[in-house]
Amino acid sequence: MRPSGRELNELRPISIETNVTRHAEGSCLIKMGDTHVLCTASIDAKVPPFMKNSGLGWVTAEYGMLPRATHTRMNREAKRGQSGRTQEIQRLIGRSLRAGVDRVALGERQITIDCDVIQADGGTRCASITGGWVALRLAVNKLMKAGDVISDPLLDPVAAVSCGIYAGQPVLDLDYPEDSEAGVDGNFVMTGSGRLIEVQMSAEGATFSRDQMSQLLDLAELGRAKLVEAQKTAAA
Amino acid sequence: MRPSGRELNELRPISIETNVTRHAEGSCLIKMGDTHVLCTASIDAKVPPFMKNSGLGWVTAEYGMLPRATHTRMNREAKRGQSGRTQEIQRLIGRSLRAGVDRVALGERQITIDCDVIQADGGTRCASITGGWVALRLAVNKLMKAGDVISDPLLDPVAAVSCGIYAGQPVLDLDYPEDSEAGVDGNFVMTGSGRLIEVQMSAEGATFSRDQMSQLLDLAELGRAKLVEAQKTAAA
Amino acid sequence: MRPSGRELNELRPISIETNVTRHAEGSCLIKMGDTHVLCTASIDAKVPPFMKNSGLGWVTAEYGMLPRATHTRMNREAKRGQSGRTQEIQRLIGRSLRAGVDRVALGERQITIDCDVIQADGGTRCASITGGWVALRLAVNKLMKAGDVISDPLLDPVAAVSCGIYAGQPVLDLDYPEDSEAGVDGNFVMTGSGRLIEVQMSAEGATFSRDQMSQLLDLAELGRAKLVEAQKTAAA
Amino acid sequence: MRPSGRELNELRPISIETNVTRHAEGSCLIKMGDTHVLCTASIDAKVPPFMKNSGLGWVTAEYGMLPRATHTRMNREAKRGQSGRTQEIQRLIGRSLRAGVDRVALGERQITIDCDVIQADGGTRCASITGGWVALRLAVNKLMKAGDVISDPLLDPVAAVSCGIYAGQPVLDLDYPEDSEAGVDGNFVMTGSGRLIEVQMSAEGATFSRDQMSQLLDLAELGRAKLVEAQKTAAA
Amino acid sequence: MRPSGRELNELRPISIETNVTRHAEGSCLIKMGDTHVLCTASIDAKVPPFMKNSGLGWVTAEYGMLPRATHTRMNREAKRGQSGRTQEIQRLIGRSLRAGVDRVALGERQITIDCDVIQADGGTRCASITGGWVALRLAVNKLMKAGDVISDPLLDPVAAVSCGIYAGQPVLDLDYPEDSEAGVDGNFVMTGSGRLIEVQMSAEGATFSRDQMSQLLDLAELGRAKLVEAQKTAAA
Amino acid sequence: MRPSGRELNELRPISIETNVTRHAEGSCLIKMGDTHVLCTASIDAKVPPFMKNSGLGWVTAEYGMLPRATHTRMNREAKRGQSGRTQEIQRLIGRSLRAGVDRVALGERQITIDCDVIQADGGTRCASITGGWVALRLAVNKLMKAGDVISDPLLDPVAAVSCGIYAGQPVLDLDYPEDSEAGVDGNFVMTGSGRLIEVQMSAEGATFSRDQMSQLLDLAELGRAKLVEAQKTAAA
Repeated sequence: MRPSGRELNELRPISIETNVTRHAEGSCLIKMGDTHVLCTASIDAKVPPFMKNSGLGWVTAEYGMLPRATHTRMNREAKRGQSGRTQEIQRLIGRSLRAGVDRVALGERQITIDCDVIQADGGTRCASITGGWVALRLAVNKLMKAGDVISDPLLDPVAAVSCGIYAGQPVLDLDYPEDSEAGVDGNFVMTGSGRLIEVQMSAEGATFSRDQMSQLLDLAELGRAKLVEAQKTAAA
Repeated sequence: MRPSGRELNELRPISIETNVTRHAEGSCLIKMGDTHVLCTASIDAKVPPFMKNSGLGWVTAEYGMLPRATHTRMNREAKRGQSGRTQEIQRLIGRSLRAGVDRVALGERQITIDCDVIQADGGTRCASITGGWVALRLAVNKLMKAGDVISDPLLDPVAAVSCGIYAGQPVLDLDYPEDSEAGVDGNFVMTGSGRLIEVQMSAEGATFSRDQMSQLLDLAELGRAKLVEAQKTAAA
Repeated sequence: MRPSGRELNELRPISIETNVTRHAEGSCLIKMGDTHVLCTASIDAKVPPFMKNSGLGWVTAEYGMLPRATHTRMNREAKRGQSGRTQEIQRLIGRSLRAGVDRVALGERQITIDCDVIQADGGTRCASITGGWVALRLAVNKLMKAGDVISDPLLDPVAAVSCGIYAGQPVLDLDYPEDSEAGVDGNFVMTGSGRLIEVQMSAEGATFSRDQMSQLLDLAELGRAKLVEAQKTAAA
Repeated sequence: MRPSGRELNELRPISIETNVTRHAEGSCLIKMGDTHVLCTASIDAKVPPFMKNSGLGWVTAEYGMLPRATHTRMNREAKRGQSGRTQEIQRLIGRSLRAGVDRVALGERQITIDCDVIQADGGTRCASITGGWVALRLAVNKLMKAGDVISDPLLDPVAAVSCGIYAGQPVLDLDYPEDSEAGVDGNFVMTGSGRLIEVQMSAEGATFSRDQMSQLLDLAELGRAKLVEAQKTAAA
Repeated sequence: MRPSGRELNELRPISIETNVTRHAEGSCLIKMGDTHVLCTASIDAKVPPFMKNSGLGWVTAEYGMLPRATHTRMNREAKRGQSGRTQEIQRLIGRSLRAGVDRVALGERQITIDCDVIQADGGTRCASITGGWVALRLAVNKLMKAGDVISDPLLDPVAAVSCGIYAGQPVLDLDYPEDSEAGVDGNFVMTGSGRLIEVQMSAEGATFSRDQMSQLLDLAELGRAKLVEAQKTAAA
Repeated sequence: MRPSGRELNELRPISIETNVTRHAEGSCLIKMGDTHVLCTASIDAKVPPFMKNSGLGWVTAEYGMLPRATHTRMNREAKRGQSGRTQEIQRLIGRSLRAGVDRVALGERQITIDCDVIQADGGTRCASITGGWVALRLAVNKLMKAGDVISDPLLDPVAAVSCGIYAGQPVLDLDYPEDSEAGVDGNFVMTGSGRLIEVQMSAEGATFSRDQMSQLLDLAELGRAKLVEAQKTAAA
């Protein structure tokens, strides 16, 4: 049995509240159970230097966690610099979202997705990708409404979910108590139509078989369908 | 006339929602109009090294702003380090809150107040102090309920408000459009009973008279009364 | 009684020696008792990027303390980076001096005031402002003599002094023994004609009343008159 | 056809030269074609603070690239700090190697694996893991020979290989010309007996199907067998 | 007797293997006994900003040591930043090599010499200069063969060797066991024709006479002749 | 002819004013012509960690330059970190002074010599060593007077002077106009009795012969005698 009482293939309750801050071009507060992430999209006319005059757009992401988003307070990254883990996560979010973007259609501009974890209970990078796409969708809508972008550069939604082996069982959408016990876990980033963008499976002090990997992918597909539904409802 | 249509001596609408995150020992989301700050209090058994075995408690504060809390996106401080402005603000918050604490009664422990600006529209340091005190109050309540602290170390509420000369008129609680125009502004930190803790009046490209200073202090006292009322209601 | 034997409203002996270094466009060594600060003014044809082609001048300041300016040796900031306190002080010095400058008359150039504390005995930020203005005055004189600046951009002297409540009494110009004991102290920056530029009153583990604030302001005005006189004599 | 003329399922020539530096407790120079990585293992009696007195051992890794290991010279990380990519890679190497270690049998000591890329032609992180295991094996042999460790803490070899979709075809062990073109690639870390430790599949500006993923895994298993053979020969 | 059994005026065995990496425009692996340094030369069309449009070339150097080049593992400089010692050494290497360069003949381009110590046994800075010149020679040959440079900008070889007082005796080319005991040692950088470029003699907890200095210079001249021979053979 | 009109073998006017700051255990302001350096000695009961319980003392040095000590203002090192040049200089000062110290007689304590350049006109590192020794002498005197140190740990004065080839002539004690033109220059650190501690000769875009080196040493010995005399007078 899972600590939360959920079924093995059951997501946590999802909620995606949009337009939660007045300055960002797109924003949402995504809640996957007790994991809450504020995602904002900021449009900038300037692209990174190496991309100038390419005519191509760029989507990038930054990730942070408030010091007391966690059970015990962590040091503030503004004081000690970004950890390797933080940089790894924000590179993943940016790469994942870009997989769903037609950079020609976007035109030469940059959209920065900020994902700030207000409260953490496992799965923050997946929630950031799922919520980040909604913020991106809303910002792109604004560009299209203003006529700055003509054909929709967002090809397909991008969503992510974690799965892992907990107490010997494959489970969907690990929360913190599961995540801290699981010897094997993975993050699966997928498109709305079920294509894969990123698969990150990792064992700490353990190993896994190809069969187990297959079971986790099955679970991830189940989760993906529900997440994409929630994204579409939120961004409608 | 003020851009918001407020009276000269009118605060923005105040809202203080408590217990907004499940991990912190005390927390609130304070809204002064469109300025929204998440304040959390974290209790730690350890005090800073120079205070060890003194028997005295310590209250300290850290301050941050999400990159898109502002009209245009700012660089993330975790990437570039804390600015001088940020350090100045968090030193002010800590000093202000300590003025209302009996450090003997608190006992040898540290409470860290994190003030993270979710959305900014002027007056973020004042909102941080006012909301920070509520988070502190709730965390101290928890210590007292648990019997870890016997006599109440919080002597009196601590609240803060800004005033300034806008379009030649003294006004209370400046919002961003006012703040960016005002040649003179000040932050006033006061106790519940009206004693002063900190007065910071500052002119940029201008000067002010003692009379004007007196008028701003009068306004600040008006504001303080309302803020303390809101603190007491929230923390009740 | 004050540790130094001074009257409550008595400044420390002031001395301002000018042209103490051969390279700077303006310089002085200001001594407020045992607090000695070397102030230099450096003229640069370049202004900060955001000000380019504005036609406006800029005055900025930097502050430092030699490692053994203090009773016990402090770590060198060049090794550990500028502290929050240092940044806060240099922002204050710059803001204060700019309040006395007509930026149009100055023309598009930058003057940097470096204030380096050779020996510290309390009140270093106030001495830096008072001495910094003299260095600025001398550098501007040079610009005017050379015909690079036509009408005098320095409207009025800018001087600063600290006051505080020491042993229950309001005292003027705190030295280190007083400063380290005072529960309440303040820094007052004023123009030659008595207008206020910056008021920073602060209590650590204490509070103060409006009456006490008024008494400190009265003292500050007394001190200001003497300081401005010394500035004028020095820069004559 | 692949730029190198290799078959789709053909590894580059492997060479693992051991004991290449006289100071390290274990070392090898691994060459996967034109990718050359120097791997050293350093034994330290001290473990990280949080592990002290746990009786458990620790294996960690650091990764670097000489500035001119690449086609055009890169900035030296000692001057600009470790990039997010570098930190991500060294975390992967450490995690991968630990999956093959019995930390109780290792005893309370730390082994640091340094992987420094002398020449780069794609696949440096995989070569680092494969070569890093050989350095680890040699260092552990030394501990066992000295009687400091009794039962072998290395359960099974750990090796890694990349695969990707190049010109529409699944290929094994991408070199730089392939890597820079491939829209999808992955790194597969496996044990000697074929269990999975880490799977990292990633698309940049593309997506992939589960079938493609399966094909890449098939290739990776082929590669793994050859790599483990080379490891065993080298460390014999 | 010297720990290595060498004569007082005997160099360690020298080996200079060229073209050891495929990307660099010039490269060698120099071995002075157990001290092994990889030297690469990278040509860049861009010179430092302050030299732009001067028509003059520039040669600069960077130096590093792999963490386990030494008896016990050192911290990685990419993690903690370059030490003062590292910066001092790389400034010396650059200055030394520039003394042998006709910057007009080189033309407006920069050549960066990277010297990375693979294994250390004393004398790494001297080996870096001697090997660095070979890498520079090979890169310049490439420029001349391509017709990018017409007249040879390398006037004369540049080589370096250390000498010191070990156990009361002047000795040539100190290895680590000698270096860590010697109270006086020096580095001598010379041209192929025996002119001096840099002399750095240094005593730690000791002093030396002019006579001793003369004896060390005599030894250095002996060593220089052999080193330049080896350079010429290698770069032929 | 030298720009200053001095003879080839003539030092600039020397002045060493002692006890110039009230907090330091020893201090002086040394002036070599227009080069002015404030040197302070700070005694600390704590030695660096690796020296603890060795019974040996330690002398170390730090060096800095005020931003406007130079013709044009330099960036403040507290803002950008210590340059390689600064670190090289302070390592030289510390090493030089330690050569004149009996570390057993000093006892387990650390003396830090801070050398801060108030005004620069060439030769700042030499002036720092010469003045630094005076500050050290005064601090040691205080220890001996207090009975904390019994036998004098200062064996012999330590002084330093620069020489160089200017306009084809060997000259003593280069000032800035000479230093910026000289193709060859050197710093010579010597004891009161004429023993050598450190010789640093360096050519930038030039070379020198052994004869020239000998001439510079002759000049340095002349200078050393005068400097040591001035040190003795000052510290008497």
